[in-house]
Amino acid sequence: MSTRSVPTLTLQGARTALAAAERRAQEIGVPMNIAVVDNGLHLLAFARMDGAKITSIDIAINKAFTAAGHRAPTSVYKEAVWPGGPAFGINNSNGGRFMTIAGGVPVVQDGVVVGAVGCSTGTPPQDADVAGKGVEAVVKTFGPKAKL
Amino acid sequence: MSTRSVPTLTLQGARTALAAAERRAQEIGVPMNIAVVDNGLHLLAFARMDGAKITSIDIAINKAFTAAGHRAPTSVYKEAVWPGGPAFGINNSNGGRFMTIAGGVPVVQDGVVVGAVGCSTGTPPQDADVAGKGVEAVVKTFGPKAKL
Amino acid sequence: MSTRSVPTLTLQGARTALAAAERRAQEIGVPMNIAVVDNGLHLLAFARMDGAKITSIDIAINKAFTAAGHRAPTSVYKEAVWPGGPAFGINNSNGGRFMTIAGGVPVVQDGVVVGAVGCSTGTPPQDADVAGKGVEAVVKTFGPKAKL
Amino acid sequence: MSTRSVPTLTLQGARTALAAAERRAQEIGVPMNIAVVDNGLHLLAFARMDGAKITSIDIAINKAFTAAGHRAPTSVYKEAVWPGGPAFGINNSNGGRFMTIAGGVPVVQDGVVVGAVGCSTGTPPQDADVAGKGVEAVVKTFGPKAKL
Repeated sequence: MSTRSVPTLTLQGARTALAAAERRAQEIGVPMNIAVVDNGLHLLAFARMDGAKITSIDIAINKAFTAAGHRAPTSVYKEAVWPGGPAFGINNSNGGRFMTIAGGVPVVQDGVVVGAVGCSTGTPPQDADVAGKGVEAVVKTFGPKAKL
Repeated sequence: MSTRSVPTLTLQGARTALAAAERRAQEIGVPMNIAVVDNGLHLLAFARMDGAKITSIDIAINKAFTAAGHRAPTSVYKEAVWPGGPAFGINNSNGGRFMTIAGGVPVVQDGVVVGAVGCSTGTPPQDADVAGKGVEAVVKTFGPKAKL
Repeated sequence: MSTRSVPTLTLQGARTALAAAERRAQEIGVPMNIAVVDNGLHLLAFARMDGAKITSIDIAINKAFTAAGHRAPTSVYKEAVWPGGPAFGINNSNGGRFMTIAGGVPVVQDGVVVGAVGCSTGTPPQDADVAGKGVEAVVKTFGPKAKL
Repeated sequence: MSTRSVPTLTLQGARTALAAAERRAQEIGVPMNIAVVDNGLHLLAFARMDGAKITSIDIAINKAFTAAGHRAPTSVYKEAVWPGGPAFGINNSNGGRFMTIAGGVPVVQDGVVVGAVGCSTGTPPQDADVAGKGVEAVVKTFGPKAKL
C-alpha cells in the first residue's frame, strides 16, 4: 500500500481542548499559554491568556510538539534525562524543541495519538494539570474513539 | 518618569479578530492560518482551519510579527524591497521572520499599533482581505479608542 | 468531530517513488539526492546517490517539504517570487526551508496530497524530471486512489 | 602530497546497513527511524518505518552524525558528559546535534570510520542493538576491509 489512513485532531477538537484548559487555568488562577498541535506536530490552535509569560509561548508549543511526537506526556522523562539517565541530552535534539518538562499531554483517540496539548507559565505540575484537563475534555466531548 | 503605559491587544481582542477573519475565510472558501500578535510582537491567538497549508503556519505568524513590529500592513513594501529599492534585503532581517508579502495587518487603537493579524494560505490579496476583516472587527466591536 | 482521517504516504509508497526517481537519475546520468516526505512534511525515505552534491541534501529535503506543505510543485513559483511578484520573499519563510526551485513534486492520491518527492543536484528541470518520475511510479504502481 | 584517499561508505553499503537494521527492528517489534551517514557526516540513506516517532527523525540522523564524527558509538559517553565529567556540555556543541544517547554506531572498514548508523524510537539499548545489526551487516557482506 502506498498510503495509510491516520486520524488527526481537527480545529474543533483542538478548541475543545483549549477551552477546557483555559477554564482550568482560570480556576487555579494561573494565566497560561496553551498550544494544541495535530498528529504531524504542527500548531492547530493557541491562546495566551492575559498575564501569561512571554517566554512560555515557545515552551507551551514545544511541549505539545514533544508530547505528540514522542507519544508520551512530557512529565515522564525525569531520571531518564538526568545525568546518569539513558536519554540524558535528548532535550538538545530537534533543534532544542524537545521539552522534558511536565505540561505536554498527548490526545489519544481510539488508541492513537492524534495531537497534543502543551501548557506553560505555572509550575510543571500546574502546567500538566491544565493540559490534562484539555485532553480529558476531548475524550469527554467526543468519546474515546476517533471518528474516522 | 521611569515607566509609561502602552496599550496592547488582549486575548479577548485577539479572539474578536480571529473569529471575524475565520468567518471571512469561510465566506471566500479558503481555509486559513490566522495568527494574532500583541504590541510586543508575541503570539496571542492562533487557529489553523482544517485544510490550511502547513507551510503557511510560519508565514501567518511572521506576517503578524512584521505588521506589528514595523507598524504597517505587509502589503506596503513592494518596490521598496525589490532590487534597487531602499529596503532591499530587509526580508532577511529578524532571522528571516520579516515578511513583505500581503496578509499582515496592524490593529490600531487610538492611533497606536496594539497588535496585528497575519493570514496565510490563499493568494496575497485573499490573505490581506481576511486579515483586514479581523482588524476591522476589533475596531467595530470595541471602538477606535484603546481602553486603558 | 474531534478528529478527521487523512491519508499519508507509507514507507512502501516512499520507496516506490525513490526507486523510480533513482532509475531516472541513472538514465540521465546525474547522481541525485532524493528525499520523500509524508503528509506532515516529515522525512520518510532518503538516498544520496554516489556523486550527488552534499549541499543538495538539504535542498532535496526542503523541496519535498515545500511541495507537500504548499501542495504544489516547487516549479510553479517563478514570477510570483521574483522582484515584483506578490510572494517575493516567501523563500525566507519557514526558517529558510521554503524552496522555490523546481524539483519538489507532491504525491497526490485520490485528490489529496499525501507526501512529496524532492530532488537536487542537477539543473532544476533535471531535478523536476527525476522527482516527477518518482511521483508517477506511485500512481502507476498503486493506482490514483489512496487505499484507506 | 596535496591529496589523500579516504574510504567512505557508498549508497550500496548504506543500504546494506539500513536493510539489516530494519530487519532487526521488525524482529523486536519496534518501528525505527534509521539513518546512515558517510565519512563526511552527511546523510546517505534514511528510512522511517511506519509507526516510528516523528521526533526521532532528528535524533536518528544526529546519532549517526555524532558516531561518525567522533568515531565512537554514542553509547560511550556516560560519566564523561555528566556534571563533573570532562566533556560535560559537549551535547550542546555542533548546534545541538551532538547526541550522547546510545543508538549511533560507526561503520569501520580496515580500521577506518567510513560512516555510521543512527537509530531512534525505542529505548537506547534497543536503538543501539538495531544500529549495531546494521553495522555488522556491512562487515559481514563486504568484509572487514574497505575496498578502495
